[in-house]
Amino acid sequence: MAIPEGTAPDALATAALADDLSFLLARANALSLAAGNSALAPLGLRVRSYSVLALAADDGARPTQRELAEFLRLDPSQVVALVDDLQRRGLVERRPDPSDRRANVVVVTDEGRALHQQAVAAAAAAEHDLHAGLDAHDRAQLAALLRRIAFPD
Amino acid sequence: MAIPEGTAPDALATAALADDLSFLLARANALSLAAGNSALAPLGLRVRSYSVLALAADDGARPTQRELAEFLRLDPSQVVALVDDLQRRGLVERRPDPSDRRANVVVVTDEGRALHQQAVAAAAAAEHDLHAGLDAHDRAQLAALLRRIAFPD
Repeated sequence: MAIPEGTAPDALATAALADDLSFLLARANALSLAAGNSALAPLGLRVRSYSVLALAADDGARPTQRELAEFLRLDPSQVVALVDDLQRRGLVERRPDPSDRRANVVVVTDEGRALHQQAVAAAAAAEHDLHAGLDAHDRAQLAALLRRIAFPD
Repeated sequence: MAIPEGTAPDALATAALADDLSFLLARANALSLAAGNSALAPLGLRVRSYSVLALAADDGARPTQRELAEFLRLDPSQVVALVDDLQRRGLVERRPDPSDRRANVVVVTDEGRALHQQAVAAAAAAEHDLHAGLDAHDRAQLAALLRRIAFPD
């Protein structure tokens, strides 16, 4: 008996854990990651490599690997591996950081920018499907609430 | 230069990705997981093993391993390893499922129930700190919005 994606066994849906904000966050994130990874797979990307590419492609961001690790809450070693992979594919370059000679910034290439534009569309379509039950107002409200957890002052 | 936990590099906080619902979900979840794991560590638990213990301890849930995997969005092999570990520590038992002879349900022991009660308090304290910027109304609203993503109809 296959349980369809995203369907919860009924007996568990009424468990106390199902009201737990941390659990809801984890489960919503797991579904979001799975949807994002399948949408990005045809472009040879996953959610993590897409996020690095998106920050490298953001005008004016010019992130260091350390900044990428902190922003994406990844280990620095994971970021190095992600940047290595994107660099090998000609999508990003490491350049010396003008404000810190010991650091490199990660900058998108022209090919990287083109792939990033396709990836934005693929990720947006996946997100739209996942959040089909939420209207624009709900989404804005959810983003505002999540931002207060994700970026506490 | 150490970047404090949860602080974002300023240049990245204005990046387009920072408005992305999937990214905010991932970052909020990463902070929540880290806080939960540190709060549960003194009890020898992590968020995942705590979740399995919580569902095993829920009256009336009596989950199978397959149900645990679906509900927690984990691989069945991960659930088997988590249940093995909890069983080795005498916190849960596997019992035959009366409704399906080929399946086992995972049931808490008395020791497991006692540890679960301590863990609920530890997890609640961690969640309270993490969501300190949200009042009760915000939390209820966030839970309702997340539930619509986590459990789509």
